[in-house]
Amino acid sequence: MRTHYLMEPGSSSKVRLLVWLVKKDLGRGIVVLRDPSGLKEVRLVGGRAGDLLKLPCESLVVIEGCYSVDGLLVESYRVLHKPIEEPGIDYTVLPSDVRVLAKYSPWYMKHPLWMKIIRLQHITLYYIREFLYSRGFLELLSPMVSVAGDPGLRGARKLHTKLYGVDYELTSSVIMYKQVSAGIFEKIFFVARNVREEPSENISTGRHLVEFTQIDIEWALASLDDVIKLAEDLLEYVTRKLIVEHSDLVYSLNKEFEPLKPPFKKIRYTEALEIAKKLGYSVEWGEELSHEAEASVANYFSEPLWITHFPVISRGFYYLPEPSDPRYNMDFNLILPKGYGEVIDGGVREYRLEEVRKRIIALGEPIEKYSWFLDTIKKGGVPPSAGWGLGLERLTRYIAGVEHIVLATLFPKLPGLPKTP
Amino acid sequence: MRTHYLMEPGSSSKVRLLVWLVKKDLGRGIVVLRDPSGLKEVRLVGGRAGDLLKLPCESLVVIEGCYSVDGLLVESYRVLHKPIEEPGIDYTVLPSDVRVLAKYSPWYMKHPLWMKIIRLQHITLYYIREFLYSRGFLELLSPMVSVAGDPGLRGARKLHTKLYGVDYELTSSVIMYKQVSAGIFEKIFFVARNVREEPSENISTGRHLVEFTQIDIEWALASLDDVIKLAEDLLEYVTRKLIVEHSDLVYSLNKEFEPLKPPFKKIRYTEALEIAKKLGYSVEWGEELSHEAEASVANYFSEPLWITHFPVISRGFYYLPEPSDPRYNMDFNLILPKGYGEVIDGGVREYRLEEVRKRIIALGEPIEKYSWFLDTIKKGGVPPSAGWGLGLERLTRYIAGVEHIVLATLFPKLPGLPKTP
Repeated sequence: MRTHYLMEPGSSSKVRLLVWLVKKDLGRGIVVLRDPSGLKEVRLVGGRAGDLLKLPCESLVVIEGCYSVDGLLVESYRVLHKPIEEPGIDYTVLPSDVRVLAKYSPWYMKHPLWMKIIRLQHITLYYIREFLYSRGFLELLSPMVSVAGDPGLRGARKLHTKLYGVDYELTSSVIMYKQVSAGIFEKIFFVARNVREEPSENISTGRHLVEFTQIDIEWALASLDDVIKLAEDLLEYVTRKLIVEHSDLVYSLNKEFEPLKPPFKKIRYTEALEIAKKLGYSVEWGEELSHEAEASVANYFSEPLWITHFPVISRGFYYLPEPSDPRYNMDFNLILPKGYGEVIDGGVREYRLEEVRKRIIALGEPIEKYSWFLDTIKKGGVPPSAGWGLGLERLTRYIAGVEHIVLATLFPKLPGLPKTP
Repeated sequence: MRTHYLMEPGSSSKVRLLVWLVKKDLGRGIVVLRDPSGLKEVRLVGGRAGDLLKLPCESLVVIEGCYSVDGLLVESYRVLHKPIEEPGIDYTVLPSDVRVLAKYSPWYMKHPLWMKIIRLQHITLYYIREFLYSRGFLELLSPMVSVAGDPGLRGARKLHTKLYGVDYELTSSVIMYKQVSAGIFEKIFFVARNVREEPSENISTGRHLVEFTQIDIEWALASLDDVIKLAEDLLEYVTRKLIVEHSDLVYSLNKEFEPLKPPFKKIRYTEALEIAKKLGYSVEWGEELSHEAEASVANYFSEPLWITHFPVISRGFYYLPEPSDPRYNMDFNLILPKGYGEVIDGGVREYRLEEVRKRIIALGEPIEKYSWFLDTIKKGGVPPSAGWGLGLERLTRYIAGVEHIVLATLFPKLPGLPKTP
C-alpha cells in the first residue's frame, strides 16, 4: 500500500500515513499531524489510538487505518523516530516577533504558510530560469569570496575572511563578475547569494535580509530600455505562469494577487521628488528617497513604478551618467506598490577606466584591491553593458503577500540578529 | 540588418558582425575575431581593411561587409569600445600551467574551449534540475555563512568571518541544513556553493577547487539503495539528454563521450582494498584509499564504480553504521573511470543525538558551536534520511574530457593560489 499525503485530495478512506505528531489534546483524543503536504487536525479513534496518543510530540510514525465520520480509525502504527525531548514550541501558530521566527526557524519553517512560500519561491525561480534561458541568457555560478567585493554598498557593511592568509571579502554583489562575463558570453545571469551586515534597524523595514538572493543579469551593449523591457517581460511571464499553473498555491497565500501587466509607469527621480514633496516629505535634490517616501510615491500610482535617472552623487560606482545631462545616471529602480518597495535595481554601467577609478576612490576604498578589475577594464575586458538585480526574496514576499521578508527564505538571517541557525 | 554570429552556420555572404579584434597579422592582413560563438580567423580585404587593422587588439567593432573567396570584404565599420592598452595575452592558446589560467582567467575564459565547457555546465545543470524537479525534489537556497559549518571536512580547512561581532564559518557543506530540511519537505536539494581552504598540493590532483558547487540532495527515510538508484537515474538522464539535444557541443569537446549506462558496478571498501593491494598499493584497513589507488581500482573495472561501506573510523560525522556490522558506514562514493576520480559522496545519515555528539567531539570541534543542530536533533527535528553530494565541476570535467578542473568553472580559485580574480 502506498503512502498518502495528509492533504491529498480525494484520498481513499483506507490510508497509510507517514506523519509527525505535532500537537495532542488527550482529553478529546484529537491530534495535529504533519507531513510535507501540511498540517491536519484529526480525531484518533480505535483501540490503538490510546497508545499513539502517549507518544511525545514530534514522533515520526506510520499509521495505517481509515477515515470515518468519527475520525481516523487507527488499525496499526509503527514509530520510526522518537524525540528525546518535546520541542515545547507550538509552530502551528506563527508568532508576530520576527526575531522569534528567525531564532527558532527549524521549527516555524514547518508551519504550512512558510512551507507554501518556499514552494512558491522554488516554482518562481524555475520560471525565472525558464524565461532567461529562452531569451539566450547563460546562467553562471557566483563566487562566495573575492579579493574585492562591490565598493558601492549603500548603508550595509561587507563581511571579511582570510584565504591562504590573504584578505578576502564575502560576495555582497557580483557586479564586477557580471561586467567581465558579459564581455565573453554577451547575455548572462547569476542566481547570486549575497551577504551584507545590514544596519540593525533595517530589521523593521520588512524587506532586508542579511543573506539574500539576487537574480543578477547583464547584457553587453544593451540600452536602458532593453533591460527595462527584459525585466517587464520576465515579471509578466513569471506571474502569469504562476496563475496558469499554480493558482491554488498562489491564491491560498494571497487572494488579491494579480499577474503583473507591463509596461509599468516610468518617472524620473526629479518627478518622484516633486511628488514626494507634494505628499509632505521633505527631501532635497541629491538625497535618496526614504523607504516611506518611496512607498508613498509608488502608492500614488498604485502599480509597479519605475523611478529612473537618479543623481550621480547619490549612487556610486555602477552607472553611466546620461550624456545629455551628466548630473543624472542612466539607472532605475522598480518600486512595488502597497509598501513592498524596491525589487529591482539596475542601469547602464560605467565602464570607463578613469571614471571607475574616481568613483572607487570617492567611496573611500583602497584602489589596489580592485587592480584585477581595473586592469581588465584598461585592456578592453569590460564592454559597455546594462543589467539589473532582482531581489528573489522581495519578489516572493510580494507574490505571497506577507508583511515581513523573514518568511520568504529558509533559515533567515535578520539585520542585527546573529547566532540564528 | 541583424547581427550575425561568427560561427553561425549558413550565414549569408552579406554580414553584420559585432566582434572583438583578438589578434592581427598586419603583413598578411589576417585577423582573429571573437564573439560569443567563438573565434574565427579571417583575411580582411577592401579599402577600409587597412584602417581596421590599425585598431588595438580587444577593440570592439561592428563590421558590415561580405564574405568572398578572398576573405571578409569590409564595407564599413564602427568602433564601439577601444582598450587603453592591449592585454598582451594571447588567449587563443591555453597555457599548460593552471596557475596562469587562474591568474589571468578574465582573458583565458575567452578561449572557445573554456567557453564551450561553461555552456556545457549550464546545460548540464539545467537537466539536473529538470530531473530532480520531475522526481519531486524541492530546490532550496544554501546559506553562505553559519555559526557552525560541517565539522567533518577531510584535509581541508574552513574559512571564518564575523557577523555583528560573532564568529561565523563560510559554507563548506550544507549537511546539517539538508538533514533539517528533509524533515520538513521530505525530498530537497541545494545547488550549493562551497569554499574550503584545500591543502596547496591538491592543485595537482586535477579535481580540487577552493570554490566549488555541490548538487546536494537529501531524502527523508530513504535507504542506501534508494539514493544510489536516484544518482544512477540522474546521471543516465542527464548524459543521454546531452547527447540527444547537444551532441555537437559534447563531441566537439570529447569525441569519446558516451552516455552513462547504469546500474554501475558496486564493491565494498574491503573489496576495493584487496584490489588495491593486488595492484601493488600498500593501504591498511581503516585508511582512505589514496587518489592513485582509487583511480587504479576504478580503472580495473573501466566503468563508473560505487565503493560502499567505508570504515567508521575513516569517515566522520555524516553516516549511520551498518546495523549488521557497525565497523562500517552505510555510505558510498562514485568513482569515475580514466582517473577522473570521486564525483559523488553520500550515504545514510547518522541522526542519533549521542552518536552525533560523540563524533563532533572526536573531530576536535567545540560542541557548543553545534547547539542549534544538536537541539534540533534532540527535539525530533532531524529524521532518518539519506542523501549525497555530486560535484558539478567534477561531472563537467568528466563530460568535457579535460585534464584539470580549472577549466570546469569560471573565475577558478585553485588550492594554494590566492589573489586570483
